[in-house]
Amino acid sequence: MLLALDFGGTKHAAATLAPGKRQWRKSRRVLLPQQVDFSSDWATMRSLIQELLQGAIPTAIGVSFGGPVNAHTGEVRLSHHVPGWENIPLQQMLEAEFNAPTRIDNDANVAALGEHRFGAAQGYDSLLYITVSTGVGSGWILNGYPWRGAQGMAGEFGHVVVDPAGPHCLCGKRGCVERLASGPYIAQQVQEQLKQQPQRGKILRSLVENPLKALTAQQVSQAAAQEDDLAQEAIEAAGRALGVGIGNVANLINPQLFVLGGGVTKAGEQFWEIIRQAACETALPEVNFEIIPAALGDEAPLWGAVALAEELHR
Amino acid sequence: MLLALDFGGTKHAAATLAPGKRQWRKSRRVLLPQQVDFSSDWATMRSLIQELLQGAIPTAIGVSFGGPVNAHTGEVRLSHHVPGWENIPLQQMLEAEFNAPTRIDNDANVAALGEHRFGAAQGYDSLLYITVSTGVGSGWILNGYPWRGAQGMAGEFGHVVVDPAGPHCLCGKRGCVERLASGPYIAQQVQEQLKQQPQRGKILRSLVENPLKALTAQQVSQAAAQEDDLAQEAIEAAGRALGVGIGNVANLINPQLFVLGGGVTKAGEQFWEIIRQAACETALPEVNFEIIPAALGDEAPLWGAVALAEELHR
Repeated sequence: MLLALDFGGTKHAAATLAPGKRQWRKSRRVLLPQQVDFSSDWATMRSLIQELLQGAIPTAIGVSFGGPVNAHTGEVRLSHHVPGWENIPLQQMLEAEFNAPTRIDNDANVAALGEHRFGAAQGYDSLLYITVSTGVGSGWILNGYPWRGAQGMAGEFGHVVVDPAGPHCLCGKRGCVERLASGPYIAQQVQEQLKQQPQRGKILRSLVENPLKALTAQQVSQAAAQEDDLAQEAIEAAGRALGVGIGNVANLINPQLFVLGGGVTKAGEQFWEIIRQAACETALPEVNFEIIPAALGDEAPLWGAVALAEELHR
Repeated sequence: MLLALDFGGTKHAAATLAPGKRQWRKSRRVLLPQQVDFSSDWATMRSLIQELLQGAIPTAIGVSFGGPVNAHTGEVRLSHHVPGWENIPLQQMLEAEFNAPTRIDNDANVAALGEHRFGAAQGYDSLLYITVSTGVGSGWILNGYPWRGAQGMAGEFGHVVVDPAGPHCLCGKRGCVERLASGPYIAQQVQEQLKQQPQRGKILRSLVENPLKALTAQQVSQAAAQEDDLAQEAIEAAGRALGVGIGNVANLINPQLFVLGGGVTKAGEQFWEIIRQAACETALPEVNFEIIPAALGDEAPLWGAVALAEELHR
């Protein structure tokens, strides 16, 4: 029996399955409380695992972690979501506690592996998986294996600059993909324009009770689908940023495939058209690639964790 | 004996050496005439090789070619310099003519391999080699081997867009690295400014007889070193374009090293400072890398061809 774990930002998930099978034997999810630190976070996952295993010993454990990790030593560098995870030897802790060989990696790499082995990217051996939701993360598969880079920092597609004259990003630069295409920034951008341009965004204003107070990228997408002018502009800017970034990546690395997942990519066919058009305009005419939607949704990291566990099991 | 060949744009080179040795046994270069087509180009290289071999049969042949090739089938797609090379099975032709197993690749990939095995990048196993001269080319080494991409099109660093509002490039896009940093474009940009701004560029005007008629990037570098205002601006813009491109690549792929060669990179220490600063500002603080000058100069493709031949010889 293999054990797959997903340390997420708002929830944790754990699942077991028989090697070679494609259906969970058991799976569990738990929402995290607002105030969580390393100790309570680890305790939550431990009890989730214990509940799942009921004393059984897994053959191997694969782990997706929401933050940078050293995949070679199995040490977490930090969590993007929970304080106190700095330099925690998670792989060793799991091996000691559950008596099974363990492999860990960050969530973007693991999700890429999940889509590669079990999802939309089966049969492709060079691809970039991109997830666009509260942030923009990405993970590489090159020659059929994760490419992590010299320090495990590869895949920061979200902080590639696509418009040096664009708006300031939290990272200190301007016009990063994440600053232009992530959900919260899309909503923020629209809110600013609603304030500045009281004549515009009528459909959006009618759809959302008080858009200046609370607005989501999903609501912006809905308004865009109903042809709200401001919402459409915002969706187009986000799509163009993603497309220019993808086209540049295609020129550099020439992968076969880009797989896009995350909430923002559910913004509708028009959004995908804009991405594809900007990507084609940016890539050289001789450079070909496909851009397709992810297939595994929220479960991509868990399936990637299965792939990590299967490598140990072999 | 190994045979290394370099099909260049203005000259061809051929050299022989004993396997494992680091000095040429014999080497020859020949300048190409202005009007050359496939037949005369191939005839030139054939007689160069015959002169070098004097009837001897090499153990293996490695080839650098100035244009896209299919490294797997050994077929040239086209030459960047000479008409008539479309879909020529160069590897098979050399094998038939000189009775030795042959491997070919494009010049940027081969030069990257040369710097990796014999030059500035020895001991590094992930790097991007960038050459900045009449164009901007690049080649990857990942996990110690060339990364060619799904169609052999990887390494088009020159056509990564770093400024979507920048000047138009021949490729149809705006603000490509090549449009901002290659020698002829640097010179062209300065010439336009000299026309528009007659008060500026005094040092440059005193250095070059008629800069509006004929100006090279090397002259722009010289004027910049003597603190000419226009020349310094042009060198800074070129350096920034390269640096932003490099920082974006670092975020995406996280290689250990960038190796920069080609005439434009001889523009002096200030130019390198600008590149390094822009690259550091663009890369995330956690993403580390080195940027160093190439060591093999014009001979990088020939040494890379040796590495290709050695792989066949093993």
